[in-house]
Amino acid sequence: MENKELKASSITVGGIYDMLLDIVNNEDNRPVVRLGRVDPPDNPLFRTTIVALDAVTTAVHSFNFNCYPPTLGLLEAKRAIADHLSSHLPHKLSAENVFLTIGGTQAVDIILPSIARHGANILLPKPGYPQYELRASHCHLEVRHFDLLPERGWEVDLESLENLADQNTVALVLISPSSPCGNVFAYEHLKRVAEIASKLGIFVISDEVYAHVVFGSKQFVPMGEFSSIVPVITIGSFSKRWIIPGWRIGWIAICDPQGSFQKSGIVSKIIDYIEITDNPPTIVQAAIPKILENTTNDFHSNNLDILRETANIFYDGCKEIPCLTCPLKPEGAMVVMVEINLSQLEGIVDDIQFCSKLAKEESVVVFPGIMVGLKNWLRFSLAVDPSDLKEGLSRIKAFGLRHAKMP
Amino acid sequence: MENKELKASSITVGGIYDMLLDIVNNEDNRPVVRLGRVDPPDNPLFRTTIVALDAVTTAVHSFNFNCYPPTLGLLEAKRAIADHLSSHLPHKLSAENVFLTIGGTQAVDIILPSIARHGANILLPKPGYPQYELRASHCHLEVRHFDLLPERGWEVDLESLENLADQNTVALVLISPSSPCGNVFAYEHLKRVAEIASKLGIFVISDEVYAHVVFGSKQFVPMGEFSSIVPVITIGSFSKRWIIPGWRIGWIAICDPQGSFQKSGIVSKIIDYIEITDNPPTIVQAAIPKILENTTNDFHSNNLDILRETANIFYDGCKEIPCLTCPLKPEGAMVVMVEINLSQLEGIVDDIQFCSKLAKEESVVVFPGIMVGLKNWLRFSLAVDPSDLKEGLSRIKAFGLRHAKMP
Repeated sequence: MENKELKASSITVGGIYDMLLDIVNNEDNRPVVRLGRVDPPDNPLFRTTIVALDAVTTAVHSFNFNCYPPTLGLLEAKRAIADHLSSHLPHKLSAENVFLTIGGTQAVDIILPSIARHGANILLPKPGYPQYELRASHCHLEVRHFDLLPERGWEVDLESLENLADQNTVALVLISPSSPCGNVFAYEHLKRVAEIASKLGIFVISDEVYAHVVFGSKQFVPMGEFSSIVPVITIGSFSKRWIIPGWRIGWIAICDPQGSFQKSGIVSKIIDYIEITDNPPTIVQAAIPKILENTTNDFHSNNLDILRETANIFYDGCKEIPCLTCPLKPEGAMVVMVEINLSQLEGIVDDIQFCSKLAKEESVVVFPGIMVGLKNWLRFSLAVDPSDLKEGLSRIKAFGLRHAKMP
Repeated sequence: MENKELKASSITVGGIYDMLLDIVNNEDNRPVVRLGRVDPPDNPLFRTTIVALDAVTTAVHSFNFNCYPPTLGLLEAKRAIADHLSSHLPHKLSAENVFLTIGGTQAVDIILPSIARHGANILLPKPGYPQYELRASHCHLEVRHFDLLPERGWEVDLESLENLADQNTVALVLISPSSPCGNVFAYEHLKRVAEIASKLGIFVISDEVYAHVVFGSKQFVPMGEFSSIVPVITIGSFSKRWIIPGWRIGWIAICDPQGSFQKSGIVSKIIDYIEITDNPPTIVQAAIPKILENTTNDFHSNNLDILRETANIFYDGCKEIPCLTCPLKPEGAMVVMVEINLSQLEGIVDDIQFCSKLAKEESVVVFPGIMVGLKNWLRFSLAVDPSDLKEGLSRIKAFGLRHAKMP
């Protein structure tokens, strides 16, 4: 970039990380601290389990999974996911309720066009995951945003949710555990969301790519728990919990014991879309049953321990930085949002300029909140090395003091 | 299916194989002979090389490739493909001319929306690969078909090609070696196609997923050979030549020494599209350099020997079946087209009915030609076991005699 400044107009989801890295001053001898992208295996502390490696290696060497995958996915893999999900649900899922996807992202890319129709709209959380907005705009699905409220631990603004819908609303999306906020929605709150959706006559797309990634006091509750109240489409993924985002494997699960989606034709539309789109590799699909069966609790709890530690370091560190406010100590997922107190800063007008100058002056990469819908906030990844996080926070503190307004 | 008959209205690319299998009579004790789908590893004679298995296993166990892939693909993989292609081209490609895709299919799914604009049209071969029609209709790109001529060894009907284009034509597609026809285009013929495209002011999309899969007298010539005449976008894949379609890895290569695509913005559009779409898994991307470097000639030549044998068996066997005519002995790719002589058959009105009855009565699965644009033809896969092929042809012969019109 010529002027080594990040411009709002040039932001794309895929490109922002590279652009911020590009802004970093090459003459800074300190290592770059990357607190932006949530890519846990980038950090040697987060390593997938040997169970996953063995599962895919066995699939590869069997010679049985070099062929094209079945159009709707390998039956054993779908059954294993259905069983895995069912163990946490009040009703049982079967293999035919599950579709395999190229990560959680492709799940979004399949579901949104499948529910789009002329004039339809969808309710999305703000802040959220930008792939929803991107894909909605591609399939001409109108987007309406409801707020997640930092002052209430990032709970859904239920009143605004209810007022947002009209007869053309088809669904609401909730990301739970919450990315990018790092909160975990309580049972009662999720139930209220389900009840409101039911009252509005819409269904819920529950993005649970961080399912079970909770390290505070709250339990993870799958939205499918309330599928007798409202039909739910769940998005899941191996990426984060198994530390293998590069394997690109996720799923769509239909939690609909009353068969509403069959009646409305949505499952058929999802199937139609899957039939013409790309499928995850057979060798990775084939590894799924063993991954789900053999992964130990130790593997998961070790990862949660690290995340709990980074969450503590982050929250405590933030308190020492006057220009930042973290409204909630993260308790789930691998991300957290903090507000920039711009009034305390001289010569910094917004989050993009903050991130740009921070990269340039301190070789620290964090994401501007505008990327996830909250202007003048920042999004941090917690899937980082604790020592890197401390170093990053220390540099941000120095940065903030250097740019502080004179009293 | 209730009536165990295949209906034209219910045909989709993904579903036809399953539907034909569904029609097979369960009371037939003979094994089903599958001559339809081109999925070589389905057949134990076609096995990928241990080089590929080792490459992906090494990548998995290194722990270095569990992270998200870079948006535009792993540099080492792109460079290895660029070098591999360059060794057969008059000009050198660099890593930045290559984009990695989820098989050849995703390459189509990326390129077509990238070149679509209001009113534009694209010239496709007939017969061809139905993904082009499918994706074109999704991105509102008008399709115009030029014929491949069976009586001229499936050469392009150059005159009709030239007459088909107008000022809104952006590109023509050629599948070379030819799927589904099984011919290999000669150097001079490809050059004529390039010259015509140049004269029309359009570019060439050269689908070379069967590159180097030639077993007759003709050499494979990449269209990039003529990129000084006309800019070329090449589609490639590891699926068929390396017998790993289930790994879902292919590429787009830009062969454009004069930089026309830079000027027209097409490369930027491809990049924009890739930035918002799904990427092939990092672990498979990471295996590419070793696969290309270490695969032996023996591996390829053994596979070509088998294909040569099945091509001979097929061509000779067809001569013994009065109701079928194979216009050209296959010399490349893994597919072949034969015409059904319907006038000799009683009670069979078209290719769909032929395939449907054949599956039901003889437990033999072949694809109706209408799937690839040629009504009343059949498409056979050559990536099959020679003994299965002989058995299949023998059953088809019996089927044809049983349904022959009385003289």
